[in-house]
Amino acid sequence: MQKPQGESVSGVHTESETTGKVITCKAAVVLGPGQPFVIEEIQVDPPQKMEVRVKILYTSICHTDLSYWKGESEAYRVYPRILGHEAAGIVESVGEGVVDMRKGDHVIPIFNGECGDCVYCKCDKTNLCERFRVHPLRSVMVNDGNCRFSTKDGKPIFHFLNTSTFTEYTVLHSACVVKIDSKAPLKKMILLSCGVSSGLGAAWNTAKVQAGSSVAIFGLGSVGLAAAEGARTRGASKIIGVDINPNKFIKGKAMGLTDFINPNDSKNPVHEIIQEMTGGGVDYSFECAGNLDVLREAFLSTHEGWGMTVLLGIHPTPRMLPIHPMELFDGRRIIGSVFGDFKGKTQLPHFAQQCMRGVVNLDEFITHELPFEKINEAFQLLADGKSLRCVLHL
Amino acid sequence: MQKPQGESVSGVHTESETTGKVITCKAAVVLGPGQPFVIEEIQVDPPQKMEVRVKILYTSICHTDLSYWKGESEAYRVYPRILGHEAAGIVESVGEGVVDMRKGDHVIPIFNGECGDCVYCKCDKTNLCERFRVHPLRSVMVNDGNCRFSTKDGKPIFHFLNTSTFTEYTVLHSACVVKIDSKAPLKKMILLSCGVSSGLGAAWNTAKVQAGSSVAIFGLGSVGLAAAEGARTRGASKIIGVDINPNKFIKGKAMGLTDFINPNDSKNPVHEIIQEMTGGGVDYSFECAGNLDVLREAFLSTHEGWGMTVLLGIHPTPRMLPIHPMELFDGRRIIGSVFGDFKGKTQLPHFAQQCMRGVVNLDEFITHELPFEKINEAFQLLADGKSLRCVLHL
Ligand SMILES: [Zn+2]
Ligand SMILES: [Zn+2]
Ligand SMILES: [Zn+2]
Ligand SMILES: [Zn+2]
Repeated sequence: MQKPQGESVSGVHTESETTGKVITCKAAVVLGPGQPFVIEEIQVDPPQKMEVRVKILYTSICHTDLSYWKGESEAYRVYPRILGHEAAGIVESVGEGVVDMRKGDHVIPIFNGECGDCVYCKCDKTNLCERFRVHPLRSVMVNDGNCRFSTKDGKPIFHFLNTSTFTEYTVLHSACVVKIDSKAPLKKMILLSCGVSSGLGAAWNTAKVQAGSSVAIFGLGSVGLAAAEGARTRGASKIIGVDINPNKFIKGKAMGLTDFINPNDSKNPVHEIIQEMTGGGVDYSFECAGNLDVLREAFLSTHEGWGMTVLLGIHPTPRMLPIHPMELFDGRRIIGSVFGDFKGKTQLPHFAQQCMRGVVNLDEFITHELPFEKINEAFQLLADGKSLRCVLHL
Repeated sequence: MQKPQGESVSGVHTESETTGKVITCKAAVVLGPGQPFVIEEIQVDPPQKMEVRVKILYTSICHTDLSYWKGESEAYRVYPRILGHEAAGIVESVGEGVVDMRKGDHVIPIFNGECGDCVYCKCDKTNLCERFRVHPLRSVMVNDGNCRFSTKDGKPIFHFLNTSTFTEYTVLHSACVVKIDSKAPLKKMILLSCGVSSGLGAAWNTAKVQAGSSVAIFGLGSVGLAAAEGARTRGASKIIGVDINPNKFIKGKAMGLTDFINPNDSKNPVHEIIQEMTGGGVDYSFECAGNLDVLREAFLSTHEGWGMTVLLGIHPTPRMLPIHPMELFDGRRIIGSVFGDFKGKTQLPHFAQQCMRGVVNLDEFITHELPFEKINEAFQLLADGKSLRCVLHL
């Protein structure tokens, strides 16, 4: 692994001169639904109380960014805005009251924060922090309801998902910043910011996949493949991938899938094929496609009596769950998983160390690397299903 | 507790003379949807391989009997038929291969059987036996697809829910018969056959209610009140009952409910009232009303992050779950519970002993007692919401 750029001691020293001051830097700003990102100079305010300003070194794009970029929902259309939530960087300065991080620390942003104090953070059954849980419609800082980003002529640029990482510098609440081991390979750590944590955690923490069990993954993007990696590392003996894109097969097999189903290859519904392959159904299924017909197939693919379907995909239509209440009496369960049920600040440092020790294989998830300026190209790669993660170097 | 009738040693001796022979006895037969039960003489065949013939001493009526009696669904209309699934009695004789029971044993029938051998019975996550799980449309014996009941002129009378207890003698597969301590008060043990096991088990085994937690019960029939008793015995500190029948309040408070809500008393939806009462919602809710609008209220009444709704009511309409997939990301869960997740033959003997020791209070569930001949009166009491359980003495 090559040493990430921008982590030199001298870099940190340079940044110290900016503490308490507005920083002028480059960011990729989106001005309207589906419009190409514009790299422009913006101003980044200093962090306020309990906030952290982070120099972003690497960032990448996930399907959530894609949805907001396209403005798929009316409520997503807040402009100008800085998207991005998967990243890794270095603390430039911290606001009043931040004691768990300081200048120079290696950090990753998390869109699903952890304040550590609320009734949710104190409950071991959930990772949804009362104030900083993922909030699809929030576009300003929690502290004061304002933006820390502005254009050169002083107009606000909106925030995104507690994070906003398509910028050289960003400001986050400290509840949404996780300090990780400075020896961890920072470039790969971007994966822990969203996709890999979400998918792998769904297998580890939400489903609690047991050794010897069988698993089906519907939708083989990064999240789906991370769920597969989670199942593999927990000892699942059968991991079936389902996707209509046959290119996903090769990647999937390299990443531990034992079987592959292309729904377009058969007239029979996928759940029937899976039930036949597994003697009644898999123990766990993961819906990572964001499609309700797929969700129903995933649900019926599990074994009666104990099958569990974990919902990971985003379902923007008003359609309700395609499950009849009496079907719950067959013993199949369905459960949602947010950020892999990881409590970010508490658990990700350990997870990062597991990745360093090779417990989890992150190598396959990064398929492309580009300079930050080519962000529009990186978006296209994801939209076309050609990349898993394309790392942008800032 | 008075000694149940018909348990004398001489009674058992008399029965031994019937082993291997057809028994002529009285049964309450239903001939068409909603038609009054007719008490008539029927013939009961000897038990076949792995079957048990039981002399029923006590039986009672639950809402499932009511649905089938009314013929609420087309598929329920199988006549002539002997309904009934809550009962207690004594083994009259056993068929070939039955080794865990013998003549004279005190037993209760279970509609959700346990063969002990199948992949489900060997899995500790489910109580749905592959062959003998509750089967709403089965109306014959599994062994040979025939009836053990017939009219005096030899026409078959159909079975019901693996049990059929509105008769002096019935034949069941041994997977659907649980032997209990002969010192247990047999009359009260009928409650373990269905309602109390289903409701209390939903709190103990399905939800795993924790001490100090808060609970809401929607629908205060026997199953709902048993769920309340289950929550009380697990140390729940707040148990809110919800019912539109204000008569249920008095009973409910006597049985440990701490609060009561009549939805008709307020313009606000029940979930808002409960969220306000509990600082965000209860930890567990139980839907025992069989109504999807109620189900949604029950779902929203639980706390985000960890709330669990247990589905107990029967939902005969084609309407799907009134829950949007994205709502699962708020951390609320929904799960179905069949027979309280008790494995009947394995776990009910211990449960019966817990009842004997007073761990669970069964006294309040039996509100009426009538001779078997007054079965039509007993049905009316239940239909009118006047009784919880009316024990019929055979
Ligand atoms: Zn993401
Ligand atoms: Zn919190
Ligand atoms: Zn079985
Ligand atoms: Zn019942």
